[in-house]
Amino acid sequence: MEESVDHPMIRPSINAVAKTYELAISHPELAAVTSPFTGERISRFLHVSMSRDDLVLQNKMQRRLGQLTGTCFQRCVGMDAFNSLYSVTYEIDEKYATGYHQRLKDFLHLMHSQNVVVGGAMTDVKGDRSLAPHQQADPDMFLHIVDRTEEGVYVSGAKAHQTGCINSHWLLVMPTMRLTEQDKDYAIVGAVPVDAEGLAYIYGRQSCDTRSMEGGDMDVGNAKFGGQEAMVVFDRVFIPHRYIFMDGEYDFASLLVERFTTYHRRSYVCKSGVGDVLIGAAAAIAEYNGITKASHIKDKLVEMTHLNETVYGTGIAASYQGYATSSGAYISDEMLANVCKHHVTRFPFEISRLAQDLAGGLVATLPSEKDYHHPEIGALLEKYLKGKADVPTADRMRILRLIENMTLGRNAVGYLTESLHGAGSPQAQRILIARGMQLAYKKRLARVLAGIETEENKEEVMEELSGYFARVFNEEV
Amino acid sequence: MEESVDHPMIRPSINAVAKTYELAISHPELAAVTSPFTGERISRFLHVSMSRDDLVLQNKMQRRLGQLTGTCFQRCVGMDAFNSLYSVTYEIDEKYATGYHQRLKDFLHLMHSQNVVVGGAMTDVKGDRSLAPHQQADPDMFLHIVDRTEEGVYVSGAKAHQTGCINSHWLLVMPTMRLTEQDKDYAIVGAVPVDAEGLAYIYGRQSCDTRSMEGGDMDVGNAKFGGQEAMVVFDRVFIPHRYIFMDGEYDFASLLVERFTTYHRRSYVCKSGVGDVLIGAAAAIAEYNGITKASHIKDKLVEMTHLNETVYGTGIAASYQGYATSSGAYISDEMLANVCKHHVTRFPFEISRLAQDLAGGLVATLPSEKDYHHPEIGALLEKYLKGKADVPTADRMRILRLIENMTLGRNAVGYLTESLHGAGSPQAQRILIARGMQLAYKKRLARVLAGIETEENKEEVMEELSGYFARVFNEEV
Amino acid sequence: MEESVDHPMIRPSINAVAKTYELAISHPELAAVTSPFTGERISRFLHVSMSRDDLVLQNKMQRRLGQLTGTCFQRCVGMDAFNSLYSVTYEIDEKYATGYHQRLKDFLHLMHSQNVVVGGAMTDVKGDRSLAPHQQADPDMFLHIVDRTEEGVYVSGAKAHQTGCINSHWLLVMPTMRLTEQDKDYAIVGAVPVDAEGLAYIYGRQSCDTRSMEGGDMDVGNAKFGGQEAMVVFDRVFIPHRYIFMDGEYDFASLLVERFTTYHRRSYVCKSGVGDVLIGAAAAIAEYNGITKASHIKDKLVEMTHLNETVYGTGIAASYQGYATSSGAYISDEMLANVCKHHVTRFPFEISRLAQDLAGGLVATLPSEKDYHHPEIGALLEKYLKGKADVPTADRMRILRLIENMTLGRNAVGYLTESLHGAGSPQAQRILIARGMQLAYKKRLARVLAGIETEENKEEVMEELSGYFARVFNEEV
Amino acid sequence: MEESVDHPMIRPSINAVAKTYELAISHPELAAVTSPFTGERISRFLHVSMSRDDLVLQNKMQRRLGQLTGTCFQRCVGMDAFNSLYSVTYEIDEKYATGYHQRLKDFLHLMHSQNVVVGGAMTDVKGDRSLAPHQQADPDMFLHIVDRTEEGVYVSGAKAHQTGCINSHWLLVMPTMRLTEQDKDYAIVGAVPVDAEGLAYIYGRQSCDTRSMEGGDMDVGNAKFGGQEAMVVFDRVFIPHRYIFMDGEYDFASLLVERFTTYHRRSYVCKSGVGDVLIGAAAAIAEYNGITKASHIKDKLVEMTHLNETVYGTGIAASYQGYATSSGAYISDEMLANVCKHHVTRFPFEISRLAQDLAGGLVATLPSEKDYHHPEIGALLEKYLKGKADVPTADRMRILRLIENMTLGRNAVGYLTESLHGAGSPQAQRILIARGMQLAYKKRLARVLAGIETEENKEEVMEELSGYFARVFNEEV
Repeated sequence: MEESVDHPMIRPSINAVAKTYELAISHPELAAVTSPFTGERISRFLHVSMSRDDLVLQNKMQRRLGQLTGTCFQRCVGMDAFNSLYSVTYEIDEKYATGYHQRLKDFLHLMHSQNVVVGGAMTDVKGDRSLAPHQQADPDMFLHIVDRTEEGVYVSGAKAHQTGCINSHWLLVMPTMRLTEQDKDYAIVGAVPVDAEGLAYIYGRQSCDTRSMEGGDMDVGNAKFGGQEAMVVFDRVFIPHRYIFMDGEYDFASLLVERFTTYHRRSYVCKSGVGDVLIGAAAAIAEYNGITKASHIKDKLVEMTHLNETVYGTGIAASYQGYATSSGAYISDEMLANVCKHHVTRFPFEISRLAQDLAGGLVATLPSEKDYHHPEIGALLEKYLKGKADVPTADRMRILRLIENMTLGRNAVGYLTESLHGAGSPQAQRILIARGMQLAYKKRLARVLAGIETEENKEEVMEELSGYFARVFNEEV
Repeated sequence: MEESVDHPMIRPSINAVAKTYELAISHPELAAVTSPFTGERISRFLHVSMSRDDLVLQNKMQRRLGQLTGTCFQRCVGMDAFNSLYSVTYEIDEKYATGYHQRLKDFLHLMHSQNVVVGGAMTDVKGDRSLAPHQQADPDMFLHIVDRTEEGVYVSGAKAHQTGCINSHWLLVMPTMRLTEQDKDYAIVGAVPVDAEGLAYIYGRQSCDTRSMEGGDMDVGNAKFGGQEAMVVFDRVFIPHRYIFMDGEYDFASLLVERFTTYHRRSYVCKSGVGDVLIGAAAAIAEYNGITKASHIKDKLVEMTHLNETVYGTGIAASYQGYATSSGAYISDEMLANVCKHHVTRFPFEISRLAQDLAGGLVATLPSEKDYHHPEIGALLEKYLKGKADVPTADRMRILRLIENMTLGRNAVGYLTESLHGAGSPQAQRILIARGMQLAYKKRLARVLAGIETEENKEEVMEELSGYFARVFNEEV
Repeated sequence: MEESVDHPMIRPSINAVAKTYELAISHPELAAVTSPFTGERISRFLHVSMSRDDLVLQNKMQRRLGQLTGTCFQRCVGMDAFNSLYSVTYEIDEKYATGYHQRLKDFLHLMHSQNVVVGGAMTDVKGDRSLAPHQQADPDMFLHIVDRTEEGVYVSGAKAHQTGCINSHWLLVMPTMRLTEQDKDYAIVGAVPVDAEGLAYIYGRQSCDTRSMEGGDMDVGNAKFGGQEAMVVFDRVFIPHRYIFMDGEYDFASLLVERFTTYHRRSYVCKSGVGDVLIGAAAAIAEYNGITKASHIKDKLVEMTHLNETVYGTGIAASYQGYATSSGAYISDEMLANVCKHHVTRFPFEISRLAQDLAGGLVATLPSEKDYHHPEIGALLEKYLKGKADVPTADRMRILRLIENMTLGRNAVGYLTESLHGAGSPQAQRILIARGMQLAYKKRLARVLAGIETEENKEEVMEELSGYFARVFNEEV
Repeated sequence: MEESVDHPMIRPSINAVAKTYELAISHPELAAVTSPFTGERISRFLHVSMSRDDLVLQNKMQRRLGQLTGTCFQRCVGMDAFNSLYSVTYEIDEKYATGYHQRLKDFLHLMHSQNVVVGGAMTDVKGDRSLAPHQQADPDMFLHIVDRTEEGVYVSGAKAHQTGCINSHWLLVMPTMRLTEQDKDYAIVGAVPVDAEGLAYIYGRQSCDTRSMEGGDMDVGNAKFGGQEAMVVFDRVFIPHRYIFMDGEYDFASLLVERFTTYHRRSYVCKSGVGDVLIGAAAAIAEYNGITKASHIKDKLVEMTHLNETVYGTGIAASYQGYATSSGAYISDEMLANVCKHHVTRFPFEISRLAQDLAGGLVATLPSEKDYHHPEIGALLEKYLKGKADVPTADRMRILRLIENMTLGRNAVGYLTESLHGAGSPQAQRILIARGMQLAYKKRLARVLAGIETEENKEEVMEELSGYFARVFNEEV
């Protein structure tokens, strides 16, 4: 690993992670906490949410880091893995008298004492999607236990498109879907250091990835920050017992996935921070083009803002409406978290379209940085790419490249594609919205007003509140 | 007034107001507060928000009442008039050493001691919209002072489409827009009892309004609840000094309007409660038609829910992000309040379209209730309008009529048209989103990432936070 | 019937039909043809399309009548019934050596010689939608043959929400869905005069229907024109052989339905004519309110136009891309016809929302016409509803009522609900778009460009053209 | 030029042009015509539309080439330059008795005899957009005449993002906007060979452009075809009189631009052909992932098709509704052409989003082709990227790369950004829709139905038809 961190394609993704440390120092109230284990100041990304304020502050930190990096800073999966494992291990122990919860706390203690980066690894490669893990022709399509010793277990399999895994110190592996008794060996949760024996990382390509190897700092658009995804292959990777937090309790797999996605879907509030950058870039290019006074320009900036703040508003509402699990950890509201993420699968695409609209065609036809630095061609570009008199041509080019970077290039991967698929593709949110929409309750409301049911029944409606609406109306859950 | 309350067209709007009292009794934690003036339990609608929780509980009460009535319950304008006047009178006093704030508190005390309904009257008829109040050919196009005595002032003018004014005990009149020095006589805020001399009410028609006079309870769709709007004409109506809360401080008119709309736009969370009823009705008719298993039916219910919860999520986020004014009253976040209301101008129309989609064409071609009760025709309808075997035909008709009521009929006025124009038409929200979108801050974010500005400047970005983003990041305002 | 035509609720729907005759006289090139049977000039609504120009001229006539009436003129179902029966009877005869085609031509000859109105009756009441016709508990849920004599057949059942049936002279009954051998008695197509023994009509209610009985001409919004739907109950209605065009050929039922909907879905171009009226009304009220110069007003009118012309453009493209059936009759393109209708299930709702936006809240809170004519109240309304100086208050009220009529009132039934469900609900179009989307062809295009298939295969792609793409590329079908 | 054509980044754009010749040979009825000048078979791209069928066949050829290349084939600008210059030169001659039309015909004759590629160059770099050409600080911001001799003129300036210019044999230069008398020297239209002295081309970068230099054929996504844009700098380029088709007739500049954009906006039908490829790719990846049976997958393919066919339907409707100019050339309908292009600025973005949805996250995280060909890593990828059993992993990767290519990569430039800005940015279409929307006519329709105007006036409405509606109703223009 030592040598790879300086690779120009990898460096920007490390810078983004580094920014999480910088913010913890410059704005500790936002990005740091005092560890309940060590009493030391550590990154908020390592802290399990123990209150609504904790949930909300995670969102605020996420938006801020989105603003400062314009990309994915890669630490939310690990944070939400801890968030969700905290209560799930507690509940497994309650049912099976296991000791996972204490082990997790010990592991948290260790991580806090080192203030390191922990990634989460959930998405298996899945193979034929119509088959369960144990039904796959190749059993490795989902990560599973292939051997056991007195000291621990060996796991094999592969996790696809893992965000920031190479920039982490540890990985938390978790199952990716509901499991049955026959999938018992797939019900494994554990922590491994990223340099454990048997681990291999295959780096994913991103649009325009090689531009960072061309030597300049303009054509990359965002020279300092970028995201990173890789496939992680596990070939008999050993996990000792002290780092195992679930082993065979298949009946808790879907609970874990649901808890994790509930936290993680509202974590997509980060995209409103990235959206702030893109709105700023669109406003800047409109200014450089000298067209800020046109009413349609302002109107498009308003629309971009309206959509962007909707992502923020619904995400933070999910956190504010959070509630305590039996473990004491707080979890955000499932319905609103899914609503937030579902908007994230739509609005960044529209914001991106509007940014390109404001940018003009040059966003995709701009000559190269090398041409700009060429003595003759550069002079022509300097002359002919001039917009407003007081704006340096290079500044105009830089903003155009930033917009290209975020809508077509390297950071479009995070702002668009990851917005679609991270924390579950659009249909995954629809399934959970469907599950929580409480049609029985709503149908009663309608039947009473339509005169089908009597007034007496009507008063019961409130009493029957459960799930989402219980929280909406502050009833006991 | 005594005689009009039993008019079948007016009765449903009174029932909706009555529901606010019923809920205060059945669920006091949601719909009642202890008056800080009297120590008695009073309606939450009379209570000025003194904390974020107060703001949030107003939203939760609103959603609940939307669910229970399926219409506008008409008390939010008065509530938000108190919310906003509380801080504005305080700030006028600070600047001009006037005594409005104490007067307002005295008036609140009086209202609390009677636990009555107070309406707000803001929207003037406006005349030629390109002219200021004092420029109008007819000076009465905006409510203004026409005479003064030692005891008080006389006002004339008219307020258009006033929600629930006839169901109120008192009206709070307020200016509707930014005023200049020449509009000084228009800068009047005061309270009048609804039966004051010189007041006339001209009832607005609603779609299908006369159905409630036909004698049945099916074709009306929602027999019990409805909304109400009227034009209120002021012909030399007297306001004594003790009920005057602004008189000539024209420079505070726009502040009052902005504070009011900030509160009132997030109050449109009520429409998510009405949306719950319509989603329930759509789910019920799909069940009665025997088509619940079709994937597109479920998918449409999910979409309706997604949109409906977005209204709720953004509205409640505005309340949760509220902050204290110098008076001690809490106000919700302006950006998110406008985002909430702006969604309200769009999503109920789409939810309504989807409800009609699930209902089938019968929602607009159903024969009349009288035909259904006719001995021969009724038998034909009983036979031919039969859907699923175990569902009474009358139930199917009732749900169809409820959907008609909410998408084309009387309550479509509240769910659709009022959602567009109440608390300001769509463009009014866009203007305020534009004002708060902090492009300077966002452009800096973009310039730093594009490499136009140096790292050093970058750290300053956080320091410069103000307005919306200061609240997002919990910085001091 | 004689007495009902003068009922104020029915009269507007008759006026709309009458307009089809007036246009045939004033603009015969648009709304009339020379009958191939009689050589006389007759309504284009009775003419089977024998060329692409015929198909296109039907669309142009439809848009024009939408513009002149602002409502549904109720003759397109009959027109498209003839359009589709012409080829289907021909093809039944080809397969079964029956004589339906000549019978249909004889019937057309008769209708042409009288130049009368012929309605089509397709939609059965359907009962439990999860069961086939012969499986229903009550066999009458779909119209079927209940008896046979030497002279003809007796049918029973009911057709729901039949547009303009009472304003027709004859009805063409047709099955509403795919049938199987066990549904043989449901495979009946025939013509009956509207006053045939055993027929009963149950009039559907429309939003605000009774306003036309209040005596004025303002509150109705569109005093002259309206739509009409009724349930038609058949109780042993006799059809003699010469008026039977299908009897038992169940295997042709789905073909008939598909042909009919192909014609009828592009017939929804009429709604672009209605949309023209609503856009005009929105532009007029913006003018009366004095706000035409605001950029967002113009922008909304542009958006309304863009959506409205999309309906027209896709509909007329379906007609222009029409092709000959073996009978010689021309049929429009199925894909584009479905695309047109699918837009009709969405865009009128958005156009309607924008019209209400431009209208302002008064569209739903306007006092009644009776108040306006009241000596005292009228004077107040005259004073306070004044907008721009040179616009009579009554004109402003009339345009507001027209917008109410089209977005919430009586003609909203046609412009919104019928746009959703007429000629098949949204999902019905999606099913046919799915059927015609030729994924095999498109996947080959992708595989060739992705380098999965060789160049050689590539050239074959064109040769394999069929269905929709064959027509797109003018290949022989 | 000789050496550049084999550059791996340029080659794909030449292949796309070459495809226009191949199609002319394999399907001459679609892509070739008989030259009216030479009697020889030539490319349809060189043929001026002399009938509605000509207009329609241009669209059909465009869709087909979009399907076969998945990119921009770069010849439509030149085609539409000829289309529009044909009538504009005719009308200049009519007014000023000049001889441009014959010169243009002679030039067409020459081009036909060589069957070469002619590009159009319209978009100037524009400088400060708030200033007219003659007001710019640097007069070269718009191409203009800098010198005159007896033989011709010398022009200087630069044309931005010129599609396919390097792949053309000749360029037609045209002004880009309305001009005034002071801009007379900017009113120049003429033809120059692409290798004329004084011409310089600065190649535009595209997303992922350098992937074609990496040696493989997978990661490029579409190895064979791509688009191309360049800035063309004119430094005293000479144009002899015989190739000048406008010189100083500034009053015809805006007519030329409007005619050109009318033709060119409906030419964006090509994107429906590109959309066919992307829909095919999305369907293929759904198949390879084994998820074709999920209802939401099919539903998304239907939605993509619905949107894609709307582009086609409105574009072809514009052509079908075309009409003759006085020169005899046919021009498409302006309203529908703008509606078509306006959809193109929206729908490809949504189709692209849905394609990424169906693709799954792998579309943006797929490891590189080099890793796939690596002996060890390749084996891991072969194992873990396996989807459905019978689908080769390489095929899955290829389709994913094609989707990346079209939604984020090189051909996203053409499918997304060029769709936004080519032939005018979105606002340019809105301006022309506004100009053609005939509000006066529509307001009359509304006033008549609202009862504001009498029946008598009403009949006049039809008589007053002009512009768009005259064509809709086949009235004489």
